[in-house]
Formats: sequence, structure tokens, C-alpha cells
Amino acid sequence: MNAPFKTSRRVEFRETDMAGIVHFSNFFTWMEQAEHEVWRALGLGVISKIDGHTISWPRVSAECNYRRAIRFEEIIDVEISIARIGTKSLTWVVRFFHSGQPVANGTITTVCCQIVHGQQPVSIDIPQAVREKLSPLVESAE
Amino acid sequence: MNAPFKTSRRVEFRETDMAGIVHFSNFFTWMEQAEHEVWRALGLGVISKIDGHTISWPRVSAECNYRRAIRFEEIIDVEISIARIGTKSLTWVVRFFHSGQPVANGTITTVCCQIVHGQQPVSIDIPQAVREKLSPLVESAE
Amino acid sequence: MNAPFKTSRRVEFRETDMAGIVHFSNFFTWMEQAEHEVWRALGLGVISKIDGHTISWPRVSAECNYRRAIRFEEIIDVEISIARIGTKSLTWVVRFFHSGQPVANGTITTVCCQIVHGQQPVSIDIPQAVREKLSPLVESAE
Amino acid sequence: MNAPFKTSRRVEFRETDMAGIVHFSNFFTWMEQAEHEVWRALGLGVISKIDGHTISWPRVSAECNYRRAIRFEEIIDVEISIARIGTKSLTWVVRFFHSGQPVANGTITTVCCQIVHGQQPVSIDIPQAVREKLSPLVESAE
Repeated sequence: MNAPFKTSRRVEFRETDMAGIVHFSNFFTWMEQAEHEVWRALGLGVISKIDGHTISWPRVSAECNYRRAIRFEEIIDVEISIARIGTKSLTWVVRFFHSGQPVANGTITTVCCQIVHGQQPVSIDIPQAVREKLSPLVESAE
Repeated sequence: MNAPFKTSRRVEFRETDMAGIVHFSNFFTWMEQAEHEVWRALGLGVISKIDGHTISWPRVSAECNYRRAIRFEEIIDVEISIARIGTKSLTWVVRFFHSGQPVANGTITTVCCQIVHGQQPVSIDIPQAVREKLSPLVESAE
Repeated sequence: MNAPFKTSRRVEFRETDMAGIVHFSNFFTWMEQAEHEVWRALGLGVISKIDGHTISWPRVSAECNYRRAIRFEEIIDVEISIARIGTKSLTWVVRFFHSGQPVANGTITTVCCQIVHGQQPVSIDIPQAVREKLSPLVESAE
Repeated sequence: MNAPFKTSRRVEFRETDMAGIVHFSNFFTWMEQAEHEVWRALGLGVISKIDGHTISWPRVSAECNYRRAIRFEEIIDVEISIARIGTKSLTWVVRFFHSGQPVANGTITTVCCQIVHGQQPVSIDIPQAVREKLSPLVESAE
């Protein structure tokens, strides 16, 4: 089984709400930030130039399940891997922990697209070079 | 078949990102805002006092599927109804349109909880009076 | 004395923080939203085409003073006018009220720029046609 | 002259807008995050217990001046110090740089308050122990 990419972050004050806990919408931004950190670690970037074209990954779906509330200044440990790699799409799975306890987990499905400024993105096959770089993050169950 | 509650909003500049479109995370906030608008329209509020107790609705899951990008200053029409009402939980379904075209749709599942400041929320059965007020929004397929 | 443009909004849950009140950063977004609403009311837009050029208004400074906290679901009345119109810049002043009581007031200074995608904005003189449309909002003290 | 506290951060995708740059409102959140990082570094926290009372620092004003746009994934170096320490208030000054070039600078003025849940904050004199911990950050010009 391949290992997930790991990162961590601290809850900022702006991320809390009047219930005294992190607002649920932040987890979607955090999932995206973890994904972007992976892209950087792979030396690619979520927006990258490949063969002279700008490639990026618009989201087509996202979900998150919440297990436990977290609070201001708590450290969140984040584990991200790839649940599924298709011909054109990629499903990231992200698990959030605090002090070893599960906090939330979610998925984001993105589609490989060629981007031209001012035009609609056009989906393309994931380039082989990208597929190879991602392979260590693909979960074994796939 | 019951009718959904309808509202609309305009895309604000802060809600866009460098891709020139609305950032996907905003739809989760918009779903919640539509839900809160329903609560107000029912004369209850998402945080309400019932029999001397503070009742609210923490989220346990949320998801959204994206069909079409939307941009600054575009009007989004929002339709919200209840896909499922359980003993303690409520699943809201929200559909977003622009000029009659589907933009995105999502769900948020919330749990009826009694809230005491500084303590963990405790799930409770949805009070009968609340259940009756919600009934016109419950989708017929249920 | 000219009259300010008036609008209003309701505090959303996401705009609160764990102190139970609106987070101070939201007032900057609200100032910008009021400004954009003025631009729309004038039939121009904060991003507009004039003589075939794209004109917009990057911010060079912003400030806000806070008088009173506001809370979830409270209505905020917003009054916006122009404190100063220079050759190239515009200083908007925005006053926030709740139930007739002052909540906060701030200013945003923006510079009229010609925008070419992928290049730095270039400041230009405010076009005379724009200046005339703005004149009813300029405070008399100027 | 005392030295400022230094930190840095990377621009996240969510912090950009359709102009392709960081939205101006983020600098206010970043100023607050730098302030909170200082409080943690001092072993106090922006919300702290002192002599059995909860002390925190509501904001009474904030401003920011913008010199240069910054973009997705760029590193921002942040320097924060105290421009002025009064009997009850504290004015933080924050300077943002990218690759050694100034990007923006701002101030936030906060007031030392005793906090009781559900009540308005009450301003108090800054405790002597806190004042001493802050002194290395006070700019020499004061």
C-alpha cells in the first residue's frame, strides 16, 4: 500500500464561527490547499505548463463528512492520497486528524483540462508524465 | 409534490478566484445561507429556543456537484428543499441555476442538537412542532 | 449636500467568529460590495469597457473604525458616498448602522486603471463621462 | 531599536480573485494571524486567562496600504511589531514583503478587554506582566 502525503496546519481565528468551532466550509479550502501542496511537492503545480499548454484541474464534485469539532489554534494533521485515477479525472481523498483522533474526511474530484484564458476549460487525458508522478499517491485498493 | 423554497443572489467579486470564476467552496456557504433563510421564513431560526432549550443543527456531511462555472455579478437562482427527514437528522438538497441552466447541486445533512455553551452538542429527536413546520419542504419522493 | 447611496444586508453565519460577533475583516468586503453596487446602479460596473479599453479600480488603501459589535442575522444599513475625487483616484467612505446606531465606518481609496490581461494595471485619468456619473455621490465638503 | 517578529506564508488559491491577484481583504486576516502568532510565541495567546479572568483584544481600527500585487503560491514575508502601547490599547504595525520588495503595510489597533460570555467586553488597563512580555516588540520611536 502506498503512503499518503502528510501535512498539518493550525486553526486560525477567522476560521471559527459563533458556535466556537471551525466552520464546516473551511474543510473544502483545506482539502484544496493539501492538493496544491502535493502538486508543488511533485514539482508540477496545480496550474502547469506541459508541452506549451496550460493544464489545470477544475473541480467537478466535493464532499466532506464531519466527525468531531475542532477549535481555534488546534493543530490539524492532514493526510491526502488519490482514491481513484481515471483517464481524465482524479479523486483525492483527504483525512483530517487532531491528536490522533479523526476529525473529518472528504473527497474532491477534479478533471484534467487544457486552459485558454477567456474560454471554457477543455478536458483532456491525463498526460502520462503526470500519471507517473502521481502513482505513489494512488491508494492500493484501486 | 411539494415546492422548494426559492431565493437568489448575485456573485460578489470576493467569491471569484484567479480562474475568473466562483471558487467551489462558496457553494457550501451559499447552501447554508439558503437553509438559514428557510429557517427564518418558518419563523424559527437555525438557532432557536424551544421549551427553554437552545436547539441548533450541526452539519455532519456536505457535498456539491458542479456543472457549469459562474462569474462575477451573475445572478444565481437557488432552490432548496428537504430530501430526507429522519428522527434526528435533516438532509437539505440545494439546486443552483443561472438563466435557467443548472450550475450546481448539493446536499447538507444536519442533526438536531441541544446546545449548551461550552459543552459538546447533544443530538435529540426533532421536536414535533419543528417537523410540522418543515413538512411543506419535504420532497414527495420521501 | 449630495445624498449617499444606501443599501442593506443581513449578517450571515459564516461572517461570525468564535467571539460571537462579525469578524472585523468582513467590513472590508462589505465596503467593496457597496462600491460595486454603486457602479452597477450607475450603469457602469467596477470593470467596464470605455472606448474599447477595460477600466477597473485597484485598491491602494483601506481602513475601518469599529464602534459596536454586530451579530448573526442582524440587519446592517450601509451608506456609501465619495469623500474625495482626484484626477486618477477615488476615495469612498462607507458608514454602517444597525437600528440607527453607528457600527463602523471606513474608507477605500481606488485608482482608475486601464487593465490588460497578464500585465500590470496602468493608472489613467478618470474619464470625464465617469466623473459626471459619480458627481451626485461626491460629498459637499470636498 | 527593537526587532520585529518575523513569519512568512504562501499565497493560497482561495486568496486570489478574478483579477489574478490576492484580494485586498486577505491582508487584514493575515495581520491578525501574525498578531496571534506573536501572542503564542510570547506564551500568552490572544485569548488568555490572567488572574482567573479571560482577557482578549477586540479590534477598534484597522488599515492597510497596498504597494504591489502578489499572486498564487508566492511567498510573503511578514514583519510585525508594536507601533504604540497605550494604557489600554495596542497598535500593531505589519509590513509585508515579497522577494525583498514591499507589498503592503498596515496597522491594527486593539483594546485590552475582560471578556464574559454573553456580555459586552469591558476595557481594562493592560496588565503589567503582559506589558513586560510585549516590550521587546515595541518600536524604538515610541
